[in-house]
Amino acid sequence: MDPDLSALDAYLDERDADGYLIDADSEDSDQYYLSGFDAPDPFLTLYDGETHLLFPRSLEYGRATREARAETVQRYVDFDHAELVEEFGPEEAVSHVFAAFCESYGVESVAVPPRFPLKTADSLRARGVEVTADTDGIVTEIRATKTDEEVEHVRTAQRANEASMAAAEALLRDASVTGEGTLEYDGETLTSERVKEEIEVTLLRHGCSLDETIVACGSDAADPHDRGSGPLSADEPIIVDIFPRDKATKYHADMTRTFCVGDPSETVREWYDLTERAMDAAFDALEPGATGEDVHDAVCDVYEDAGMSTLRSDDRTETGFIHSTGHGVGLDVHELPRLSPAGGELEPGHVVTIEPGLYDPDVGGVRIEDIAVVTEDGYENLTDYEKRLVV
Amino acid sequence: MDPDLSALDAYLDERDADGYLIDADSEDSDQYYLSGFDAPDPFLTLYDGETHLLFPRSLEYGRATREARAETVQRYVDFDHAELVEEFGPEEAVSHVFAAFCESYGVESVAVPPRFPLKTADSLRARGVEVTADTDGIVTEIRATKTDEEVEHVRTAQRANEASMAAAEALLRDASVTGEGTLEYDGETLTSERVKEEIEVTLLRHGCSLDETIVACGSDAADPHDRGSGPLSADEPIIVDIFPRDKATKYHADMTRTFCVGDPSETVREWYDLTERAMDAAFDALEPGATGEDVHDAVCDVYEDAGMSTLRSDDRTETGFIHSTGHGVGLDVHELPRLSPAGGELEPGHVVTIEPGLYDPDVGGVRIEDIAVVTEDGYENLTDYEKRLVV
Repeated sequence: MDPDLSALDAYLDERDADGYLIDADSEDSDQYYLSGFDAPDPFLTLYDGETHLLFPRSLEYGRATREARAETVQRYVDFDHAELVEEFGPEEAVSHVFAAFCESYGVESVAVPPRFPLKTADSLRARGVEVTADTDGIVTEIRATKTDEEVEHVRTAQRANEASMAAAEALLRDASVTGEGTLEYDGETLTSERVKEEIEVTLLRHGCSLDETIVACGSDAADPHDRGSGPLSADEPIIVDIFPRDKATKYHADMTRTFCVGDPSETVREWYDLTERAMDAAFDALEPGATGEDVHDAVCDVYEDAGMSTLRSDDRTETGFIHSTGHGVGLDVHELPRLSPAGGELEPGHVVTIEPGLYDPDVGGVRIEDIAVVTEDGYENLTDYEKRLVV
Repeated sequence: MDPDLSALDAYLDERDADGYLIDADSEDSDQYYLSGFDAPDPFLTLYDGETHLLFPRSLEYGRATREARAETVQRYVDFDHAELVEEFGPEEAVSHVFAAFCESYGVESVAVPPRFPLKTADSLRARGVEVTADTDGIVTEIRATKTDEEVEHVRTAQRANEASMAAAEALLRDASVTGEGTLEYDGETLTSERVKEEIEVTLLRHGCSLDETIVACGSDAADPHDRGSGPLSADEPIIVDIFPRDKATKYHADMTRTFCVGDPSETVREWYDLTERAMDAAFDALEPGATGEDVHDAVCDVYEDAGMSTLRSDDRTETGFIHSTGHGVGLDVHELPRLSPAGGELEPGHVVTIEPGLYDPDVGGVRIEDIAVVTEDGYENLTDYEKRLVV
């Protein structure tokens, strides 16, 4: 994929910086996006209209010359690293190498991402290179708008996601209930861990990996970041939130469903219906020109009108709607744009989740999440999975 | 686990810094180690003899008060965040919150990790807090020495690793060979991807996850970081390098074997024997008081005596022994200590890989890797897996 970096050119122009510099491994999505290279150890990418890479060792050098989307690829040894170590010691030597690398392209000032490593920045500054933290995260901003190819990558990951959600739902549907109200499957207690394993194996078979999955029941489900553990219970809401990454493309999908085996309480039924309405309101607001805040407000309106707390009505609440409405999805599972009070204008090509939810330790949690792409005249929902509380 | 932070106290004393500050999510192992808290979004940990956490939102707050190994847990709202946003805008407001957080503990100067985010550092500096990048990575250094509990975590991950290696070896052993020399299993071409899937599913069943695995054959294997892809061939070396993370403990294991289905070339046989000898030499050198450089030199000696290139004999070589001998393993799969020219003194509790290897695009690659812990009087090899080239 050839990204459109014209916004980066304009950014450097506007700030009068000679280049944009990243020091990270390719787990950093800005690094992967800008360098077009996948490496497990940190390396430098300098963009000055062209892209230049610098590697510590020869190890990645050969592969980078073949694979990276870069005009030049160099290594420390190309800047007399060994001699500099002799003269200055290993720490200071690297700062001389970095400065020489910048100097070789006539770069005397760089903008860098907000989370750029302080040590590298201070090293460059000590050698006279001007380093300014880019408070906007310009490459992160550019990544928010997806090409058609990137949207297809998300769609592919979402198909795998749906297969794994179906596998999880099937386990729950086929579970029996013990006298104590615990779920059983195949003669064994059905746990969060067992359902997650089923999800993860299904994703692996579909070419996806993931670090974590949420299968959270009861009070676990009342904390949106609790991954869930232990036996699953009947009559209680079970939140299943799956956010896999396609191994081939590195793009993510993201989807949540809330299931209940047996008979949910009246409160949970009400929360589920309310959350579906909040979701509809969010989608009604989702279009280019609207802001992320508009979409978030639509959800807060539905919840607050029904008497629920939100962070908008009470910024210290620990129950009710206690997170934002959604986030961008791409190389990172959480990226721009924000569907939150800080969310700016939406544009065609933005891929976002819509994920309203309600939480209370005394009730549990309910969350429903789809993933969609903003289009020229509205949005396309990329999710193809039924919403149904009772399985 | 309660880490021994006396070295951090001494470090702060020596540098006359009031505190040590980390700004990262818990994927950053220093953050996870120091805070004792697992969270997907960045938060601040300030250590001044006690541990203090600061979270942007309420979302993690409740769980952190219950789970984190910290004396105090706070959130932006506790420092008048909303009012500061009104007055200064969102960017500058955060810098006021950070400075107020430090000030509330009387902290006017902090040491920070080398990869501490520049924007946070510059924000604190603008508010009068002195910020110095810790060139040594003191928490990373402390993590290098494992407690008995941590060694057990690695051992448990290594048992899972061995199960997945056995699954991979079984696939290769049971493969048949087509007329064109390609491996087949169950009537289908046996690919790197298929073997990796088997490894990953086995690891999941054993409570481990991993982002990547290497199953590299032929010229793929000549690049130590190539993950491998496509059909596997008979009579060629296949490098299988597996480095899983135990999901419960977050500790890693790491092991490599090189297999050949059929009849390896004379060169590959020689390389394999030479690499086993290099490994023996490394283990002979592995003891407390020796340096990582000593162990690396032992490997280079064996290879160079046999006429092979190493980075020690030629720092630009792209064939021969083109990486270091090993690295620490723990919360990170690559951590201190180094078994390389820069490797310092080894201590009891250091968990390291020993992984000599030889590479040449015309031959392929051979690498063998065990994982061991340095003990009071030598080392204990934590690996229980046979070394055999031909399967």
